[in-house]
Amino acid sequence: MVQATSLPRNETGIAAAVETLKQRFGDQLQTGQAICEQHGHTTTWITNQAPDAVAFPTSTEQVAEIVKVCAEHGVPVIPYGTGTSLEGHVNAPAGGICIDMMRMDRIIAVHAEDLDVVVQPGVTREQLNTYLRDQGLFFPIDPGANASLGGMAATRASGTNAVRYGTMKDNVLALEAVMADGGVIRTAQRARKSSAGYDMTRLLVGSEGTLGLITELTLKLQGIPEAVRSARCSFRSVDDACRAVMMTIQYGIPVARIELLDALSVRAANAYSGLDLPETPLLLLEFHGSDAGVVEQSDMFASIAEEFSGFDFAATSTAEERSKLWQARHDMYWASLQLRPGAKGISTDVCVPISRLAECVGAARDKAEGMGLMAPIVGHVGDGNFHALLLIDMDSGNERQKADEFVGWLNDLAISMDGTCTGEHGIGQGKRPYLQKELGETTRYMAAVKAALDPDNIMNPGKILEM
Amino acid sequence: MVQATSLPRNETGIAAAVETLKQRFGDQLQTGQAICEQHGHTTTWITNQAPDAVAFPTSTEQVAEIVKVCAEHGVPVIPYGTGTSLEGHVNAPAGGICIDMMRMDRIIAVHAEDLDVVVQPGVTREQLNTYLRDQGLFFPIDPGANASLGGMAATRASGTNAVRYGTMKDNVLALEAVMADGGVIRTAQRARKSSAGYDMTRLLVGSEGTLGLITELTLKLQGIPEAVRSARCSFRSVDDACRAVMMTIQYGIPVARIELLDALSVRAANAYSGLDLPETPLLLLEFHGSDAGVVEQSDMFASIAEEFSGFDFAATSTAEERSKLWQARHDMYWASLQLRPGAKGISTDVCVPISRLAECVGAARDKAEGMGLMAPIVGHVGDGNFHALLLIDMDSGNERQKADEFVGWLNDLAISMDGTCTGEHGIGQGKRPYLQKELGETTRYMAAVKAALDPDNIMNPGKILEM
Repeated sequence: MVQATSLPRNETGIAAAVETLKQRFGDQLQTGQAICEQHGHTTTWITNQAPDAVAFPTSTEQVAEIVKVCAEHGVPVIPYGTGTSLEGHVNAPAGGICIDMMRMDRIIAVHAEDLDVVVQPGVTREQLNTYLRDQGLFFPIDPGANASLGGMAATRASGTNAVRYGTMKDNVLALEAVMADGGVIRTAQRARKSSAGYDMTRLLVGSEGTLGLITELTLKLQGIPEAVRSARCSFRSVDDACRAVMMTIQYGIPVARIELLDALSVRAANAYSGLDLPETPLLLLEFHGSDAGVVEQSDMFASIAEEFSGFDFAATSTAEERSKLWQARHDMYWASLQLRPGAKGISTDVCVPISRLAECVGAARDKAEGMGLMAPIVGHVGDGNFHALLLIDMDSGNERQKADEFVGWLNDLAISMDGTCTGEHGIGQGKRPYLQKELGETTRYMAAVKAALDPDNIMNPGKILEM
Repeated sequence: MVQATSLPRNETGIAAAVETLKQRFGDQLQTGQAICEQHGHTTTWITNQAPDAVAFPTSTEQVAEIVKVCAEHGVPVIPYGTGTSLEGHVNAPAGGICIDMMRMDRIIAVHAEDLDVVVQPGVTREQLNTYLRDQGLFFPIDPGANASLGGMAATRASGTNAVRYGTMKDNVLALEAVMADGGVIRTAQRARKSSAGYDMTRLLVGSEGTLGLITELTLKLQGIPEAVRSARCSFRSVDDACRAVMMTIQYGIPVARIELLDALSVRAANAYSGLDLPETPLLLLEFHGSDAGVVEQSDMFASIAEEFSGFDFAATSTAEERSKLWQARHDMYWASLQLRPGAKGISTDVCVPISRLAECVGAARDKAEGMGLMAPIVGHVGDGNFHALLLIDMDSGNERQKADEFVGWLNDLAISMDGTCTGEHGIGQGKRPYLQKELGETTRYMAAVKAALDPDNIMNPGKILEM
């Protein structure tokens, strides 16, 4: 494991806050070692830094109460959803109180006429979509994991269909949040657009719990499309595949998903999901629209693919065949791990302008091979975002060091290409030096905003900014 | 004219700053009364409050220099584009230096492969679209006026095709801005999405020059659609028209524009633009897509309209007929003024959840009629946003008072319907009390952000927040 940075602990304050909260909340506050460690755990390679206690509030008022107690004693609060974040977001480097939001899991109101829904932060995206299905509605953001919607907003998550529907930034209409002083705000009303003052919604989305704790979300919904069609196409090179993607986007084909799997990923998928795909770079696509529209879209894509020597193109509108393919895509993390049993997966997350994508993916593959690292690559390539999953023996200091070097090299490369070190995973603890490299002076003004809204640095300290 | 609030003037500081800037910038700084008054002028009913001088920088470095001088002397800086804002945004209630951005009008780089463009803030949207046409690209946001892109970002503008393409918030990838201390920041790289830290882009978009001065914008572009089709349909009532809109949006028809004109507006358009439309509520639509796609979309709309007793439906894909109709829509402001020659137009700008739209528009029309106010209504109804244009004899104290009462009443009504007092015009000076009503406690945290980034309150003071 890579050692996470520790911050000074306020022992007196922590003891006092835990005592007060125990009296107030009884069983809703847990201090057992196992539960604390579990709440420091994420799908990450950064050392677990457990909080001192975990609170399980059931209402905004309870969250505000907890924050007020912590504010009074200068004690950190760290929000927790499903623990699927990847950059040490829920670690407690200065100790403090973890606020587990998963008991706040009510769907408060569906406004079908307005295509929006109001939910508590512990509702997961699958829970929401199951609930909505009968009404012909869905929430489109799909980061893979069945994450909590509060966590998805906090990290500005996106995933496979951001190319069509945007990221959390584009799909949150309004938030309710508990601020560092315990004040409760609502960032906007339910109108579809507004020019009313500073965009506090977007300021909180992606702030990773460092500016406020999200206690309610108003989300945009979509009507379930009349028709959905999937397609796949193999290519002779990553370069050809990326060029086909670029042209698809330029032609304005409204693809709902366009995913790249490199040859190694296809090999992993074949083995894990019992498929028989050519082990060369593959694009998986999904089209949403009318019956005629999705066929038109997939035909247009097919002719673009042909220009770039695509082969084995296949498209289907039947649900069963679609599911099989997309299930394989969703299982890529597990499939990749099977390429090297016992290895730990470390995911990179760069995103570059699409004109640089082929070059960036190619360089990443060459670099990994040159370093002797096994690193299957998958990508939400319509947005220029891809993940190399480094399969590392964590007992080998040499491999860990190589992984570290690769991650840093790739982040620097993406930044040099006018891209970002994180397309969707967030900064957390792991990428703070790269945020500095990426945005320089701008981080000084971010720090000013942070200091203004959380002067005592109690909101998820040690994340995003080096302060 | 309605009296704008004045703020205390820092006479010594202003004199010193003007003196320093004159020496440094020569003719690029103007202090003549006419030019100062012109730069306090907007399409607004709020009293002109002229700055003490107007600077005409040609580069980011010059803007930073000006801001540094003003910061040193505690003197306000007010950014100015085309002067088409509607809520007193460019007034100088405490005097100070207006920074006219219109000499910063270069299109710096078109990245056709990435569908983005880098421009200076003085580029207007028509200038940009003329420049892009040969490359098959366009920038979709159309607020009506040929506004500067910097101003459009600063007010979070939108307009007729926000229903399809979003607002400025959705179409700005990154900004360069000069901050209150003269520091220059770049808010993001050119990647299509990012989870790298606080969303400083969205914090600046809509901040109306109160947090930083936008000196460069990276904007998303769209490919010019293969086919564009327009349609119009008349309805027996605003209620029927709004219900048809609601169903169109629910069905997920990707309308590029869907505009409502009430009966009075249609009358004005007939007279001004030589049309012969039935003088009942009218919907104007535009569809973007493939040749087959736009016909499918307009057919789907036609059957929805029929359900709500729509009549005189007509659709066309020929450019000439389309232009005629949309020119009439764009001329509505001038057409409306002709309903009452000599009157001044005062525009409201509420936006409500679409389920409340019919009720809100109906109530606005009834209220205006009940008060004896002539107020044609047009709306970007796909988003729930509409404008009642009050035609007021500004020499009549009674009418001015009625207008004031109507505006306040409508803002309150929209807020009570979970809507906003401003869908796209911004808060400026005029709507500060309503921002408070709309978002309450949240404005306290907005004020904290403002104080952190602009501790001496020199960036466009007296706008958005009551401080």
